[in-house]
Amino acid sequence: MLPSVTPVQERSVLSVSIVGTGRVGTHLARRLHKCGVHIKQIYNRDLSKAYALATEVQAQVVTNLEQFGKETTDVVILAVKDSAISDVAQTLKLQKIQSVLVHTSGTVPIAVLQPFTERFGGFYPLMTFAEGADVPWEQVPVGVNASNADDLLLLQTLAQSIGAQSFTLLDEQRVGLHVAAVFANNFTNHIIGMSYELLQMHGLDKALLQPLIEQTVQLALAHDPYAIQTGPARRRDAQTIATHLELLRKHRDFSRVYQLISGLIQKA
Amino acid sequence: MLPSVTPVQERSVLSVSIVGTGRVGTHLARRLHKCGVHIKQIYNRDLSKAYALATEVQAQVVTNLEQFGKETTDVVILAVKDSAISDVAQTLKLQKIQSVLVHTSGTVPIAVLQPFTERFGGFYPLMTFAEGADVPWEQVPVGVNASNADDLLLLQTLAQSIGAQSFTLLDEQRVGLHVAAVFANNFTNHIIGMSYELLQMHGLDKALLQPLIEQTVQLALAHDPYAIQTGPARRRDAQTIATHLELLRKHRDFSRVYQLISGLIQKA
Repeated sequence: MLPSVTPVQERSVLSVSIVGTGRVGTHLARRLHKCGVHIKQIYNRDLSKAYALATEVQAQVVTNLEQFGKETTDVVILAVKDSAISDVAQTLKLQKIQSVLVHTSGTVPIAVLQPFTERFGGFYPLMTFAEGADVPWEQVPVGVNASNADDLLLLQTLAQSIGAQSFTLLDEQRVGLHVAAVFANNFTNHIIGMSYELLQMHGLDKALLQPLIEQTVQLALAHDPYAIQTGPARRRDAQTIATHLELLRKHRDFSRVYQLISGLIQKA
Repeated sequence: MLPSVTPVQERSVLSVSIVGTGRVGTHLARRLHKCGVHIKQIYNRDLSKAYALATEVQAQVVTNLEQFGKETTDVVILAVKDSAISDVAQTLKLQKIQSVLVHTSGTVPIAVLQPFTERFGGFYPLMTFAEGADVPWEQVPVGVNASNADDLLLLQTLAQSIGAQSFTLLDEQRVGLHVAAVFANNFTNHIIGMSYELLQMHGLDKALLQPLIEQTVQLALAHDPYAIQTGPARRRDAQTIATHLELLRKHRDFSRVYQLISGLIQKA
């Protein structure tokens, strides 16, 4: 950045309004508030949730979406489910929102907001938001994009203001990234769950696997996972694979996963 | 332990001989040596590997397995592939080994050693041993079992001597634990590899997923993974799943994994 340009955050305190108080909306609101971003309005269909969060982050609750946007904010964040994005944006358009309108979806292109406003974009935090768990915001990459360069800068600044890293995420990359996140989070999590279930079946404590899982991930993050793969599938140890499948014979879901992924490891 | 019992490690320096200098044998030998266990003899079919490791850990190389065991040690560790365990044990029996004979397999019951010696057991470190990577020995659970109580104590002491934790691993639990480790390590590692491949396909840096993966594992270790599952499969978001599968349409391996594990998440 050239020295003559004044960063947005030095010009004024950023302000944000949020539609949706699910996990993403709630975690974002708390973090924004904590980092000194002014949260003006909050809307949620379930008003009790809106009031609970608004109290926490000193925001005003809007009880009817059609009243949303009477107060101008820098950014309006739609943290709603994918299928609701267009409908909500349509309603907001009627209020002639003077803000950049962004969604937090990893799947929907930001272009879906184009019919409703000139200033639109995406603000996709690449993280899992578990109920009650702390979010490591300093490490969260936020995928941003916007319909114009000023708003892109604004969104980068918003990400910066909550201590996160931003990267430019194009619509044509968005779904690919989301699918990658589904593999990295949802599927990894389920596979770990299956490993725990196997331990329980054999009267063993799931804590036994913790060091192995931690080491697995440290190695997978530091290297090419395909290149460092070990185990019976990798060394094409047909005898061990047969012994394992015999054990899993009565557990069809386990044997399907075992066969599919072992086959992929052998091909990789 | 009662105060009157003298722990094995205080009676004398433990001594070990090792057959096999693959990843498990090599990592074990280095750690044992580092922790003051005396490594007497090393054998490996590829003698150059045996000499390299023996130099490192100040052991003697035995060039012919039939000469192995002329020196008595507390423990002889068979760190060979599963299919070779019986043959090697058979050869050693001819030398009338005066040691407890253990293997390091996660699949083969220790009972396979019974025909060859009265004193036998298992010493299974539940860890992945990657080439060149440090092993977090202080966290490694070592599954031990033995044909008599004294030798079980000896193996527990051996695990203790390398800073590891030991737990009793029965033959009827062994394969189940190994399969669980295959899920927790091999499959998790492969799934992370697939997520990286998806990023590469979309021109995105794999480093973007690192914080998500670390958070995923921290949450999965601290909670019941099935209970904290998130994502499109968990919320039965058919629209997003369809969008993802459309993206994966030309990547059959990816879509097979996506469909199978999404189906399991929906059932869990």
